[in-house]
Amino acid sequence: MSMGDVIDRGERGRVTLQVIAEKLDVSTATVSLALRDSPVVAEATKSRVQALARELGYIYNRSAASLRTARTNMIAVGFHDITNPYFAEMLVAVEETAAEAGRTILLGTYGESLERQERVLGTLKEYRPDGMILCPAGGATAESLAHLTAARIPVVQISREIEGVGLDFVGSDDVQGAHLAIAHLVELGHTRIAMIGGMEDTSTGWCRHRGYREAIEKHGLRFDPDLVYMDYGTRQTGLAGIQKVLALPDPPTAAFCFNDLTAFGALLGLRRCGREAGLDFSIVGCDDVQEAAQWYPALTTVRNNHAEMGRRAAELLIERIERPDLPPRRVLIRPELIVRASTVAA
Amino acid sequence: MSMGDVIDRGERGRVTLQVIAEKLDVSTATVSLALRDSPVVAEATKSRVQALARELGYIYNRSAASLRTARTNMIAVGFHDITNPYFAEMLVAVEETAAEAGRTILLGTYGESLERQERVLGTLKEYRPDGMILCPAGGATAESLAHLTAARIPVVQISREIEGVGLDFVGSDDVQGAHLAIAHLVELGHTRIAMIGGMEDTSTGWCRHRGYREAIEKHGLRFDPDLVYMDYGTRQTGLAGIQKVLALPDPPTAAFCFNDLTAFGALLGLRRCGREAGLDFSIVGCDDVQEAAQWYPALTTVRNNHAEMGRRAAELLIERIERPDLPPRRVLIRPELIVRASTVAA
Repeated sequence: MSMGDVIDRGERGRVTLQVIAEKLDVSTATVSLALRDSPVVAEATKSRVQALARELGYIYNRSAASLRTARTNMIAVGFHDITNPYFAEMLVAVEETAAEAGRTILLGTYGESLERQERVLGTLKEYRPDGMILCPAGGATAESLAHLTAARIPVVQISREIEGVGLDFVGSDDVQGAHLAIAHLVELGHTRIAMIGGMEDTSTGWCRHRGYREAIEKHGLRFDPDLVYMDYGTRQTGLAGIQKVLALPDPPTAAFCFNDLTAFGALLGLRRCGREAGLDFSIVGCDDVQEAAQWYPALTTVRNNHAEMGRRAAELLIERIERPDLPPRRVLIRPELIVRASTVAA
Repeated sequence: MSMGDVIDRGERGRVTLQVIAEKLDVSTATVSLALRDSPVVAEATKSRVQALARELGYIYNRSAASLRTARTNMIAVGFHDITNPYFAEMLVAVEETAAEAGRTILLGTYGESLERQERVLGTLKEYRPDGMILCPAGGATAESLAHLTAARIPVVQISREIEGVGLDFVGSDDVQGAHLAIAHLVELGHTRIAMIGGMEDTSTGWCRHRGYREAIEKHGLRFDPDLVYMDYGTRQTGLAGIQKVLALPDPPTAAFCFNDLTAFGALLGLRRCGREAGLDFSIVGCDDVQEAAQWYPALTTVRNNHAEMGRRAAELLIERIERPDLPPRRVLIRPELIVRASTVAA
C-alpha cells in the first residue's frame, strides 16, 4: 500500500482503504491497486472495488500522493485581470490544456497592484504548484519575480513580458500588431490617427505604443503627442479617451485602441458624441476577443490568437516541469489584421 | 519541528530548514518557529531567519502541513462559464474573500456539459479542497452532486440552485427580478414584451421565465409563446433572439433579456435592424455587470448584486467548513431595478 491511500484517519468521516478492503474481503494493497486501475488486479475485483469506493464516497488523496511523487499536479495561474474577456478566454484555454494533461489550476488575481501581486504569488507558491503561468501587474520588474526563480519554480510568462528575467514567454509580436493597424488606417487615407489606452509600464503597452509611433513616422505622418491617451486598457479608458481626442481643435479621424476592451469603450464614447465608427470615424482594436465580431459595427482588430497563447503557455510549462534545464524559450505569435466594419475611408 | 517544514528532500534543489539552521547556527526548531512568526523567537533572530529563507527561496510546504492539520486551505470553484463577466466578476469577489481568510482558489470550468462537469468536479475533489463553490451546468440534478455529498465535502451552490440536494445556496430572487423588469416595461406602456434567453434546465432560467409569465398575466397582458426565445444566455442568443422576434407579424416593442450578456447581444441585434434601444424599442437586462452602465444607451437592468453573492458564498463556505453540521442555508439576495437609458415609453 502506498502513501497516497492511507491518509484517512477518519476526519469528516472519510472512507479508508481499510473499510473497503474489509467489506470486500480483499487486502488493502488490492484495493489500492484497483483504485489506480492497475493491470495486476483482476477486472472483476477492480470493478467491485471501484463501485464500492464510489458508493462510499472514497476520494484518492492527492495531497498525500504529492509527497510521494514530489508533484502536486497543480499549475498556478496569476493574472492581473480576469474580467477582461481576453484573459478570461485565455484562462479557459490554459485550464483546458492543463486538464487534458491531468493538471488543475490554482488561481490568483491582483489587478495592477504590485503589492497585491507579491502577496498573491507568495500564497500560490506555498501550495507548491509544479509551475506557474503569470501575467504580471503593471510596473513589475525582474525583482518582482526573483523569489520565484530563487525557489526554482518553473514559470512561463504570458502576454506581458518582463525582459531579462530568464523565464519562458509566450505572447504576441505587439510592435508588429501596431504596424498592421496603422498601415490599414493609412491605406484608408487617415492622417490624424489617435492611439487610445496602454501604459508603458507593461510590455504590451510599451510595444504597441512603440509600434504606433514607428508606423506613424514610417508612413510620413507627424507624431502628435496630443493624439495619445494613455491609461490601462479598460472600457472606461476607451470611453474617456475617445471623448478627449474628439474635443481637440484638430481632432483625429481614426483611432488605434490598445485592446478590444478599450475599443468597445471608444465605440460607445463615439456614439455619445453623435458619431459612428464605420461611417464617420474608424476604430481598430487589438486582441480579437469573441465580442469583437459580435459588435455592431463589427470591430476591425488585430488578432493576437489568445486561445493559442494560453494553450502554448500550458504546453511550454508542462515541458519545463519535465525538463527544468531547458534554455528559456520565447514564443512570439504572429498577429493578423482582421478587417470588419468599424473602419472606413477617411 | 513540525511536519510542514521537513519535506524537503532536495527535489529541484529546494532549501531545507536544516540548511537555514546550519547557516545561522540555530536549531531547526527555531527556524521553523521563526518562519511561522512565533512570538517565542526573538525578533532579531526571526528577521535573520526570514531574510535568509527569502534569499534562499525557501517555501513553506502547505502540502505537508495539510496532512498535519487535515486542511488544505484550498477552496475549489466550479463554474460553467467564466467568460461571462457576471461570473468573472463574481469569481473575483470569491477569490478576494477567500484570500482574506487565507484560502486559495482551485478553478475548474465545464461549459454547459454535464459530462465535463462530472470529470472536472471529480478532479477538483481529488485535491481535497476544504470545500467547494459551484454553479452547475444546465440540466444538473441532485444526482450530479451526490458524489460530493457522499464524500461529505462542504459545498455552497451559487447563482444556480439544484433543489432538494440539501446544500447551502446563495443566489438572487430570480422570480422577483423578472417581476421588477416587466412592471417597469408595463408602466412605460408596453403590451407586447418579449423574453429573450434563458433555459428551463437551470434554476435562473426557469425562475426568470416563470416570473416573466406570472408578471405578464398579473398585468392583464396575454402570454404569447411566440415572444419567448429560449437558449443559454450569451451575446449570440441576444443577437439571434431579437432579430427573430422583430421579424414576427406582430412584433414586440420591448424585451426582457435573461441576462446582461443577452441584452448586449440584443442591443447590437437591434442596431442591425436599424432600430435603437431607448428610442424606438426598450431592452431590460438582468445582472448589472460593469459593462451595463458603460453601454450607449446605458442598460436598464435588474441588479443581482453578484459581487455580494460571491462574498457571501465564500463566507458561508468558510463557516460550513468550521461547522459541518449546520443546517443548510439559503440566502436569496433581493434584486433591484436599475433604470438607465435603454428603456423608453411605448
